Amino acid sequence: MKKYIQIDPWKIIENKFTPDNNKISESLFSLGNGKLGLRGNFAEKYSGETLQGSYLAGIYYPDKTKVGWWKNGYPEYFAKVLNSCNWIGLNIILNKSELDLNNCVIKEFSRHLDMKEGVLYRNCTITTKEGITLNIKSERFCSMSDDHTAALTYEIEILKGQGTMALSAYLDSNVENEDSNYDEKFWNEISLKEFSKGIYNEAITKKTGFHAAHACINEVSVNNEQVESINTTKSEKYISQNYELTFDKGSMIKITKYLGIHTSFDTPNDLELRTTESCQSIFNKTFAKAKEEHVEAWANKWNECDVEIKGDESAQQGIRFNIFHLHQTYSGKDSRLNIGPKGFTGEKYGGSTYWDTEAYCLPFYLSTADQEVGRNLLIYRHNQLQKAIENAEKLGFENGAALYPMVTINGEECHNEWEITFEEIHRNGAIAYAIYDYIRYTGDESYMAEYGIDVLIAISRFWAQRFNYSEAKKLYVMLGVTGPNEYENNVNNNWYTNYIARWCLQYCVKSIEGLKDSKEEILARSNFDIKELELWNKIIEKVYLPEDKELGIFLQQDNFLDKEQILVKDLDPKHLPLNQKWSWDRILRSVFIKQADVLQGIYFFEEDFDMKVIEQNFDFYEPRTVHESSLSPCVHVILASLLGRKEKAYEMYLRTSRLDIDDYNNDTEDGLHITSMAGTWMSIVKGFAGMRVKDQCLFFNPLLPDHWKEVSFKIKYRRQLLKVKIDQNKLYLLNESAQPMSVYIKDKKVKLLEHEKTTVQL
Amino acid sequence: MKKYIQIDPWKIIENKFTPDNNKISESLFSLGNGKLGLRGNFAEKYSGETLQGSYLAGIYYPDKTKVGWWKNGYPEYFAKVLNSCNWIGLNIILNKSELDLNNCVIKEFSRHLDMKEGVLYRNCTITTKEGITLNIKSERFCSMSDDHTAALTYEIEILKGQGTMALSAYLDSNVENEDSNYDEKFWNEISLKEFSKGIYNEAITKKTGFHAAHACINEVSVNNEQVESINTTKSEKYISQNYELTFDKGSMIKITKYLGIHTSFDTPNDLELRTTESCQSIFNKTFAKAKEEHVEAWANKWNECDVEIKGDESAQQGIRFNIFHLHQTYSGKDSRLNIGPKGFTGEKYGGSTYWDTEAYCLPFYLSTADQEVGRNLLIYRHNQLQKAIENAEKLGFENGAALYPMVTINGEECHNEWEITFEEIHRNGAIAYAIYDYIRYTGDESYMAEYGIDVLIAISRFWAQRFNYSEAKKLYVMLGVTGPNEYENNVNNNWYTNYIARWCLQYCVKSIEGLKDSKEEILARSNFDIKELELWNKIIEKVYLPEDKELGIFLQQDNFLDKEQILVKDLDPKHLPLNQKWSWDRILRSVFIKQADVLQGIYFFEEDFDMKVIEQNFDFYEPRTVHESSLSPCVHVILASLLGRKEKAYEMYLRTSRLDIDDYNNDTEDGLHITSMAGTWMSIVKGFAGMRVKDQCLFFNPLLPDHWKEVSFKIKYRRQLLKVKIDQNKLYLLNESAQPMSVYIKDKKVKLLEHEKTTVQL
Repeated sequence: MKKYIQIDPWKIIENKFTPDNNKISESLFSLGNGKLGLRGNFAEKYSGETLQGSYLAGIYYPDKTKVGWWKNGYPEYFAKVLNSCNWIGLNIILNKSELDLNNCVIKEFSRHLDMKEGVLYRNCTITTKEGITLNIKSERFCSMSDDHTAALTYEIEILKGQGTMALSAYLDSNVENEDSNYDEKFWNEISLKEFSKGIYNEAITKKTGFHAAHACINEVSVNNEQVESINTTKSEKYISQNYELTFDKGSMIKITKYLGIHTSFDTPNDLELRTTESCQSIFNKTFAKAKEEHVEAWANKWNECDVEIKGDESAQQGIRFNIFHLHQTYSGKDSRLNIGPKGFTGEKYGGSTYWDTEAYCLPFYLSTADQEVGRNLLIYRHNQLQKAIENAEKLGFENGAALYPMVTINGEECHNEWEITFEEIHRNGAIAYAIYDYIRYTGDESYMAEYGIDVLIAISRFWAQRFNYSEAKKLYVMLGVTGPNEYENNVNNNWYTNYIARWCLQYCVKSIEGLKDSKEEILARSNFDIKELELWNKIIEKVYLPEDKELGIFLQQDNFLDKEQILVKDLDPKHLPLNQKWSWDRILRSVFIKQADVLQGIYFFEEDFDMKVIEQNFDFYEPRTVHESSLSPCVHVILASLLGRKEKAYEMYLRTSRLDIDDYNNDTEDGLHITSMAGTWMSIVKGFAGMRVKDQCLFFNPLLPDHWKEVSFKIKYRRQLLKVKIDQNKLYLLNESAQPMSVYIKDKKVKLLEHEKTTVQL
Repeated sequence: MKKYIQIDPWKIIENKFTPDNNKISESLFSLGNGKLGLRGNFAEKYSGETLQGSYLAGIYYPDKTKVGWWKNGYPEYFAKVLNSCNWIGLNIILNKSELDLNNCVIKEFSRHLDMKEGVLYRNCTITTKEGITLNIKSERFCSMSDDHTAALTYEIEILKGQGTMALSAYLDSNVENEDSNYDEKFWNEISLKEFSKGIYNEAITKKTGFHAAHACINEVSVNNEQVESINTTKSEKYISQNYELTFDKGSMIKITKYLGIHTSFDTPNDLELRTTESCQSIFNKTFAKAKEEHVEAWANKWNECDVEIKGDESAQQGIRFNIFHLHQTYSGKDSRLNIGPKGFTGEKYGGSTYWDTEAYCLPFYLSTADQEVGRNLLIYRHNQLQKAIENAEKLGFENGAALYPMVTINGEECHNEWEITFEEIHRNGAIAYAIYDYIRYTGDESYMAEYGIDVLIAISRFWAQRFNYSEAKKLYVMLGVTGPNEYENNVNNNWYTNYIARWCLQYCVKSIEGLKDSKEEILARSNFDIKELELWNKIIEKVYLPEDKELGIFLQQDNFLDKEQILVKDLDPKHLPLNQKWSWDRILRSVFIKQADVLQGIYFFEEDFDMKVIEQNFDFYEPRTVHESSLSPCVHVILASLLGRKEKAYEMYLRTSRLDIDDYNNDTEDGLHITSMAGTWMSIVKGFAGMRVKDQCLFFNPLLPDHWKEVSFKIKYRRQLLKVKIDQNKLYLLNESAQPMSVYIKDKKVKLLEHEKTTVQL
């Protein structure tokens, strides 16, 4: 844990340069616009600790799997997020020595990310080894209004010294991936060119053959007088425009880079033309105008997704940081894209899609973005259905059964640990649940016939084959699985998995029954045979769900009570975190839980259980949970709030909201925990505000932390926008849309006319 | 499976050179003498498929672990068996082109390993690209009478052609390990020298700092006239003596290499001197005399360990091949050495010690070698006790509890798969059982006080901490283990593990009670507190052992009967072998068993169970066992024989006896399955001959395969030698020792005076 970021409601501020924190700051100061993004690397050379990263949505490399002992079924490749062309790069040589903060005396340093604007600022005053003192001010953004463009300015004011400056403003695709398994470089050169005023760098990924094109126009001036480049140089995958300047005390050197960036992923034709056009277009616009449009785009976003907290500025900063990064990562415009665990902030874990998307991110995008965004997240899986069927076939399943991958970019499994890849199959459940969740929230019933049913049938087939009938129990059991709690591996009858698997079958049966028009044609897409229902219904009747009647709890898995029953509070803190202090086998055989498992199921299917059951399970499992997954605390906030456990809810909230800003897990340097950021949002909206959908209406049941004066946010629901403000006594609603809407506040149904507001006493 | 080796009672014969089989043959034709060994590589260059391998006992390299996902507790290093100096090497250039069987027309080719002699012979007639026809005859051996020496002869007769031959006879330490994780070379050069007539090559292993010294005197003659070398050349880690010869049709060129080989492992001082002395000594002896002494040493071995089978020549060849390789691998002279899974025949798997040693190899050496050999195998583990305690500490155990590694060379764990390394803890049981087995067999009660009790106490402490009390069951359970059947991982209450763990505690308690002299001092070595017995006794009383009373079987683990109960015979053969055809998760959740698990326990503790129980368990588990471990069939031969199941016993025997000769598992090319070879011997002696120890005497209860006319073997027992011959009706005994002995034949006790023989009707 490191707390060096200044508290501010709208900004992430670093006021001092600490080389040891640089990689953390680079993560925190990442920018993105759904199509492209980059870490907060310096534009100029930096020879200290840094993780260089520019990323392009959808562009990946299948890196050859590295394992100790091969197991049948392991994927050959791991799809890696690719570090791509460095487009911010400036080489600045002052009287022969290269500008490098690692070799300077830093007199003043600050950088801040303005989340309202989506702009990263830096201001620093430094003295070089040779005694030249200069001030650098820089700004950059990845345009939200035109997502194929980006720009940065870099102003140098000479405070002391004189001489010459050699400047290279470059595009460099000769970059490395730190996370490469075999120290390979992943890009080959396609072309390095000049075009009108700019330079162009096109590279292609090895194996996957993705083209990435970067065009850049550099604008350089000294004391407001334009300077032309003296030449262009090229080397392997690298092109730069070079300038020679003289400077004196008081000289003001300004460099602006205008970028056009396209890839063959979204621009299959005329790549060079389109890229240079984008570049020319942002250049023509000028930096100021392009920034203005970008800031306006962010303002529009914030207007519909902001969460305001009064009385807790640190929580305020935390939630905005999370919302900001979620919208930077995924715009929802392209159903082939998804939400990577590190977004555009790092390369670790690779892949782009975990079950996090369905279980944690979907609710956020449903409530804060257009309905199409959620729909695209679902269609992503529909696109990959055939690959999921092939994946299941590899493991021995038949007849169109689908097992979606644990981690994927293109639909193929990337993960290579048998206990996860082959066994953490509950992900199939979350993918089915997302269909239910989306339709329940949006009312978009058409989705089922159009796409949803195909996925549900394939997943149901998987479950039907994955259960086996136990002659001993006379029930259907599911052996050898790993539940959401990854601190158990290869267990039998994980309650959560069995429950969601049964639910999938039920939901699929109901959804097939519910199909109206063209039922036969729809089912024919899946070669569905009505006889399949027989087995499914038999299984639904006889699924084994382990429980302990005496304790009144569901059992996380078979024989869970054989474990030594100790609680986290009884554990000497020297043992925590378990994942660093204990050997793996000790973790596995202990009672301790990494993340919500039974409680994850209760969260999903809350309406199936009465409050006593929820409470008994919460009181049994929460004290055994170490929350060593960033996805755990939010579920506990939501259930603790439901149970009226204010303190527990806030304790859990603290664990999620500033995870990255305060580097809780000592791993922010690798990138941010993008998907768990959605959990923070859920903690507030589904937790403290108690939002649900009930009878086709939004429902609220608030329980604010005691010291919070007020929390307010907007919710998109069925193409309407509702503003909600909650304080310790009252709930204010404002219907910002042009149609009336009804809202439940606890048991009370409130009808709001268009643009009407109301206040309800709590 | 490949069957190309000629059947012969004493020889392994290959009559045709098939490049595709070369690596298999190289394994089969491996030689060794317990200290050093090598694969059957050609002395001259071979550019086709080959696995080059010369190995030195005790010399290893800790190769950095390679894993996909790191787990706490994983070892940093994997101790690899090292390919070391190539000492057979000859470079032969005939009129400018290098002699290489891969580029010749092979007119005649045969090689054979004479197992009686321990000598490898080759005879081939080839024509080079340039049209020179020559015959090569070569012989080599690793001396059994002086284990620091080896020699080879290489005779070339020119059948057609003439010209010059450039010959280099070299020692090359610049070798690679195919199994290197990071493509590193493992040796550094120490010195390359000439000494009197010979050359000397000393190298040192990286990290571990083992020195390996090879001295070689080359003797070269043409038509019986000695030729002196023209010069010596050196390059990195390589030294050679070079010769220039002219040849003509009929020329007879003879090269003899005399080797002295020492390592710092067994020659810590004066390494160079001792090595050159060994070399000089075998050279002085001449090849013929050295070979004679070597053959005599083998004759002495065979006299005490041979198994003769009449009526089944293929089985005869198989058993001799296995005995031969076991004695090549391990001589039992040095308690720091052990029996590597590939011996001196390959580098795969690394390490040198698995639980195979205790469970399978010990009985072989107890019965076919001096008592000290078995004792040394036990002391090996005693030597490594402190490391085993540290290994347990790494996993969170305390107070001197020991967990022996799954794989090791120097006592440190090498294996890096959590489900094996951390969970296949039953190995501790086998190590304790070996102490019992050794004392029962040899009567060497002193071993317990001197060494055994230290190991037993440390292992008992481990079990006492590894069991946990289940409030639910009111019994002690053991969670998260992998049993001998590695087709199950991370199961609860593996019957075998729980049983052997309880037995360890019982045996340790009894052994502590049984200590006589200096009891306190002995126990003080382990800081043993008498109060520890309380917990141990409590556990012994209340260990949970899963069983199904209705079926009358022990359950391999909790909930085993929840699995779909299908039998191997009902499986479409296209699914076999499972380890190649099925994904890992499918294997895990299936009922199929890789190797004896419950039956392994019944084999170890046969006297604890009545025949009905043995039969019920055999009939339940055997049909579910796929025997995809080479260690499985032998246990089934023994139990099937006990149960009078002749056909099943012979079926199982076939799976073990010619595993390598006929390349059953398509992996002989990697090296031979040395440890499972002991299982073949057990199959005959403990299986068909039904040998046991009963009331301090040997016991036999034979059941020969129907077509076997006769099987005979010798057994060392308590420093006596017994010859046993069994046919379909009678059992012949000959007491070859100078003291009387008693032997049970079934229920009948026979007393044999010194050198007396007798016949018993069966």
